[in-house]
Amino acid sequence: MKDFVFCTPTEVVFGKNAESKIASRIQKYGGTKVLLHYGGRSAEQSGLLPQIREHLAQHNLPFIELGGVVPNPRLSLVREGIDLCRREGIDFILAVGGGSVIDSAKAIAFGTRYPNDVWELFDGKGKVTECLPLGTVLTIPAAGSEMSDGCVITNEEGWLKRGYSTNLARCRFAIMNPERTFTLPAYQTACGVTDIMMHTMERYFSLEDDMTVTDAIAEAILRTVMEAAPIVLNNPNDYRWRAQIMWAGSLAHNDLTGCGTVGDWATHHLEHELSAMFDVAHGAGLAALWGSWARYVMSVRVSRFVRFAVNVMGVENDFTDPEGTALRGIERMEAFYRSIGMPTSIPELIGRPATEEEILTLADKCCRQDTHTEGNFKVLYRKEMEAVYRLANK
Amino acid sequence: MKDFVFCTPTEVVFGKNAESKIASRIQKYGGTKVLLHYGGRSAEQSGLLPQIREHLAQHNLPFIELGGVVPNPRLSLVREGIDLCRREGIDFILAVGGGSVIDSAKAIAFGTRYPNDVWELFDGKGKVTECLPLGTVLTIPAAGSEMSDGCVITNEEGWLKRGYSTNLARCRFAIMNPERTFTLPAYQTACGVTDIMMHTMERYFSLEDDMTVTDAIAEAILRTVMEAAPIVLNNPNDYRWRAQIMWAGSLAHNDLTGCGTVGDWATHHLEHELSAMFDVAHGAGLAALWGSWARYVMSVRVSRFVRFAVNVMGVENDFTDPEGTALRGIERMEAFYRSIGMPTSIPELIGRPATEEEILTLADKCCRQDTHTEGNFKVLYRKEMEAVYRLANK
Repeated sequence: MKDFVFCTPTEVVFGKNAESKIASRIQKYGGTKVLLHYGGRSAEQSGLLPQIREHLAQHNLPFIELGGVVPNPRLSLVREGIDLCRREGIDFILAVGGGSVIDSAKAIAFGTRYPNDVWELFDGKGKVTECLPLGTVLTIPAAGSEMSDGCVITNEEGWLKRGYSTNLARCRFAIMNPERTFTLPAYQTACGVTDIMMHTMERYFSLEDDMTVTDAIAEAILRTVMEAAPIVLNNPNDYRWRAQIMWAGSLAHNDLTGCGTVGDWATHHLEHELSAMFDVAHGAGLAALWGSWARYVMSVRVSRFVRFAVNVMGVENDFTDPEGTALRGIERMEAFYRSIGMPTSIPELIGRPATEEEILTLADKCCRQDTHTEGNFKVLYRKEMEAVYRLANK
Repeated sequence: MKDFVFCTPTEVVFGKNAESKIASRIQKYGGTKVLLHYGGRSAEQSGLLPQIREHLAQHNLPFIELGGVVPNPRLSLVREGIDLCRREGIDFILAVGGGSVIDSAKAIAFGTRYPNDVWELFDGKGKVTECLPLGTVLTIPAAGSEMSDGCVITNEEGWLKRGYSTNLARCRFAIMNPERTFTLPAYQTACGVTDIMMHTMERYFSLEDDMTVTDAIAEAILRTVMEAAPIVLNNPNDYRWRAQIMWAGSLAHNDLTGCGTVGDWATHHLEHELSAMFDVAHGAGLAALWGSWARYVMSVRVSRFVRFAVNVMGVENDFTDPEGTALRGIERMEAFYRSIGMPTSIPELIGRPATEEEILTLADKCCRQDTHTEGNFKVLYRKEMEAVYRLANK
């Protein structure tokens, strides 16, 4: 068991009409001039953005707008946001959307207070010491960015996707109304579910496997999300089960599921290169890779995969055949992904196999520049990253 | 499902040698002159207090001491602490101990900044608007006060036990080293386990029973704690399982297990009068009452007790007999309490049946002055409180 620090100060306001609390929360956390940051049409068309504009105006909170965040949010827009915040004297950022918008908002928030170019931070060449406060109105449960300390930004020069984490960039508040997720398309819902599950599983597959209460909570979250997914895909307006997914999404990534464990994160990092290269949805990329990663690393500690198979996937434990039990857990996970329309290989993800050159480029890019490795459950060197990509490319 | 606000800003530093972080955390949260607040001999004898004194001195943090907190912490000591803090210009309170010490520290913290007598607040006649910051070094996992917003104080005049809750009094940090709990006596360990379980169950038995992810987490915590209890009673120095209990104790009462539900809390309030009158351990009082409460209210929603029986107590679901399944869950819970040395009736708790006069006094005192009721799963009026006490008195 690893010593840990758990610090999750984000104030979550969850439920119907949670949006009515936006202005009071901005003011509570010191905001007087707001950057309203968002993506594209959906928040406009759903009526959410017009409602928020009116709400802010009613509460005499001046705001400047910056829309246009795309999935795998771009460094260029972050730089534009930083310029805007500095020029306009913004003192609070309100991110309306999902993980991409929140991640972009976080990067703008600390970038505004960082003296040099913000990409230095993602490149491991600097450290944040100050950050504008930010809050969010969450519309896509998936990334968990609303309670997490991290953000991931894509640099268009070289299509590098890199993360940066700091407690300073945690949202002060998160407004979460499950009704706002009713209009999420099925594919995006399924991608979100996959991302939520993977945030839990990246922490669950740990060689620090003696923190039972964390494991039990992780398993509870996984089982609930798996129960919820087919229900909301069948009935998108199901408040009860949309709520389960929404709250699970935050809990999966606010560190609760990692207390006492050491996360692996290889699948996430392997995927980041995949979605940076092919601009696919992060959740779908995770589903495409996970089974191959799992088969590749399983032998390091089969008991962990047996526990997962039995406690999460409901596999009957064959005590005489741990490997068989573990494998059936992996297979059942992949069957679940397929059942909600997720790919379980790279060809299913991008419509064709990756070329030999693409595989090599992916592995090259994924290698961390400091250690040349990824993962913890099994440490992957460059050749092994290549092997996982190859396994997923069949 | 009930809308909810989740806000748990306490920074938890968990693990071996967590105590080395005390001074840095006090300074991080603005403390320059500390009230060191604690109970009696155990923290002294274990070497913890001497270690903390040396640590604070090494970090040039001046401190004043106030020991002597007893279980069911007393108003008189709180008043003494308030005078001391005002006189000495204390700006941070460090509570070293369990729930009683932390509760006493919280009352001192907001009492110091409250212009009138602090008991007004517990009497429902005032509201906290300011509070000294406080932190804790937890030695007894039970009350969950290290992450909760509440505290319970006993007024020796009339032996009234009353609670007050405010987010302002949440600990800024909680230092949690499971090794510090190795020396807890078996009885106190069992009382703590009971309190932890009851914090979870008071929220679990809710008519708002559609928040599946919260239920699943609550069940995970309950099962883990029940697994851990006999292990640590058998081997008090088992770090792994002491850690499960310690962390579960915080999660059980930091609101996580109540997201979307409406807590009942009748058992807690019925018990507060019991421990105020007989000065028994809170956890033991809870165990003595819970089965009687459960039988008394079960029929309101049998399905909830069936879920508890099956998912927590491992009872085989007899689908033809929900009441029977539910009852077996209650019986198995009581059997567990007995197995860890806890009483399951008032006579077992105090060594004799309560007298008729005592029963009437308990029910009189328990009646909330505003609504004359307790509980939510089933609202109990005075006569019904009496009935639960009577049922537990057999």
